[in-house]
Amino acid sequence: MTSRFSFSIAATDGAARIGTISMLRGEIRTPAFMPVGTAATVKAMKPADVRAAGADIILGNTYHLMLRPGAERVARLGGLHRFMQWDRPILTDSGGYQVMSLSELTKKSEEGVRFKSHLDGSAHMITPERSMEIQRLLGSDIVMAFDECTSYPSTRDAAAASMERSMRWARRSRDGFDSGAEHAARAALFGIQQGAMEEDLRRISAEKLIEIGFDGYAVGGLAVGEGQEIMFRTLDFAAPMLPADRPRYLMGVGKPDDIVGAVERGIDMFDCVLPTRSGRTGQAFTRSGPISIKNAKFAEDESPLDPDCACPVCTTWSRAYLHHLVRAGEMLGAMLMTEHNIRFYQALMADLRQAIAERRLTAFADAFRARYLGR
Amino acid sequence: MTSRFSFSIAATDGAARIGTISMLRGEIRTPAFMPVGTAATVKAMKPADVRAAGADIILGNTYHLMLRPGAERVARLGGLHRFMQWDRPILTDSGGYQVMSLSELTKKSEEGVRFKSHLDGSAHMITPERSMEIQRLLGSDIVMAFDECTSYPSTRDAAAASMERSMRWARRSRDGFDSGAEHAARAALFGIQQGAMEEDLRRISAEKLIEIGFDGYAVGGLAVGEGQEIMFRTLDFAAPMLPADRPRYLMGVGKPDDIVGAVERGIDMFDCVLPTRSGRTGQAFTRSGPISIKNAKFAEDESPLDPDCACPVCTTWSRAYLHHLVRAGEMLGAMLMTEHNIRFYQALMADLRQAIAERRLTAFADAFRARYLGR
Repeated sequence: MTSRFSFSIAATDGAARIGTISMLRGEIRTPAFMPVGTAATVKAMKPADVRAAGADIILGNTYHLMLRPGAERVARLGGLHRFMQWDRPILTDSGGYQVMSLSELTKKSEEGVRFKSHLDGSAHMITPERSMEIQRLLGSDIVMAFDECTSYPSTRDAAAASMERSMRWARRSRDGFDSGAEHAARAALFGIQQGAMEEDLRRISAEKLIEIGFDGYAVGGLAVGEGQEIMFRTLDFAAPMLPADRPRYLMGVGKPDDIVGAVERGIDMFDCVLPTRSGRTGQAFTRSGPISIKNAKFAEDESPLDPDCACPVCTTWSRAYLHHLVRAGEMLGAMLMTEHNIRFYQALMADLRQAIAERRLTAFADAFRARYLGR
Repeated sequence: MTSRFSFSIAATDGAARIGTISMLRGEIRTPAFMPVGTAATVKAMKPADVRAAGADIILGNTYHLMLRPGAERVARLGGLHRFMQWDRPILTDSGGYQVMSLSELTKKSEEGVRFKSHLDGSAHMITPERSMEIQRLLGSDIVMAFDECTSYPSTRDAAAASMERSMRWARRSRDGFDSGAEHAARAALFGIQQGAMEEDLRRISAEKLIEIGFDGYAVGGLAVGEGQEIMFRTLDFAAPMLPADRPRYLMGVGKPDDIVGAVERGIDMFDCVLPTRSGRTGQAFTRSGPISIKNAKFAEDESPLDPDCACPVCTTWSRAYLHHLVRAGEMLGAMLMTEHNIRFYQALMADLRQAIAERRLTAFADAFRARYLGR
């Protein structure tokens, strides 16, 4: 019998783990990278190509979807999976981060966040209960608790107050999620640790989340401008506070070298707009570091984007062609650059999984960094 | 042995014909629709999807390609086929039409057209000889003679003078094409009939072209704003003037009902930006006529774009999803709408070919029009 949610760890290497999350809509191999499908589409890619790239799960944005096409509309159309024709797991964020970063005239209170849509100025409110309801209407497989992403930098007092509120909202999220019994029997709920860069706040947050009890645990409040060094230093103490037998998800991360370092620190799941967004602006990821394909030096370069890449883009077209397409503003340029970048990220995750399975993660990570970062 | 260029007619039905053009890079089933790949890409589609849609040949624009990435550059990169990874026939236009419609500060003379690039203002000149050279550098399979598209409306005297110049340029195009012996041994050259809507001018033009001798003959100077009725009236006398044993190509046409009527009048080849451009602006072609997917009535419509379409878009996604994507400005919306439209056009051509083969074109065309035009 396939379970609603289970996580099994096949091997560990230092703090890193390789494992499998089993859900009703399919398995998720961890460490996993989730392509971001903001508005019910991984931008510029067909779902079949996202899957062919190796993605086991994608992410949908509650904030975007609640505004357009609207959660109730998606529900009437049979849910997000049917709407966009992606039949594997979908994780939805809570809307908490984007409501603060994208919407206008936000008013936060203990109840939740009142805001106006960045699309049409219409008035909305998200509370923990409403976030759970929206994610249920979307038919999410992994639901994220509604939290407040502590701003950076923040005073210690502000970080503590923000974390405490997020923990009260985590409790309300748990209750809201559980009240939708039918959906709760099919989906999972993740809690989100806050506490900025403060070890004791992170510990309090982890303890409160564990007391409530979640299927998985996310590290929130990182990748907010603190830089990789501080992020890794925080992960060094924050990640081990989260239960070892549950998936750990580092939200919004990141650059390839961020991911490698976070996997070494025990993180199992990632999401980031970087591969898709970069693809639309002419940046390609390669084993030797990122390149900007618009650069004039690529105008007659017949080699593939990444000479060590076996993806359909690299085995078919030249840098010269992609240079031309991107310079000419051709949609095919964005399509192919995005596909390569998603392939690159998924290949990196597969390499990481294999290195962990073979207990040679440190050697792999060092070699990856030496080449990718050129140092 | 595969020949450089041959055209065989398998069956006729009235003035209409079903046939096959055989070239070194593949066969072209006629009547054929050629998707337009302006800047070395059929916009928003991968070449494999263009082929899967049923296209045997695509069109490239000399004017666009000479300016970006440049014909010499394409040649250094191995030609247009290798550059864009389309290995079947490509027809290139002569640049004559677009240099007048898109560029700035054009100066026409007997020699050719001097102009400034609409991209960067750089100075260029196209002559019949340079057009042949560019098309050779691109590695075109079907090269179009360099002509002057007579403006509409035009006085009879102006139309006559313009046609006469085009015929002198047709001679120079023939000579220029033949001077590239290696390319001429692999490619074909088409002449273009001009003469506006005047029967006697069209006859003079046809006679001069036939005297020069071409592999195929295009009807130029139509689809320039004259409307379908005048276009059909002109085709009624202009098409039969062109050799029955050679392909006849109606340039820049058109709407589905234009194509059906032109096939009934003996035309074998078409190209038009309509399916691709419409796809990017939210218009879909259906058996019951065009629809604008942005229309609010489609917001929760779970039926496919065209209920009678077997294409991958119609068998996968709903109007509601496409409505959402296009409204949200998502690239996937343009991608899927374009793919459906190209599939629709190719399916129409396949239907026309079958109807001709079974000598029931009139019944097919009448039924198509009744449904498509709703009358």
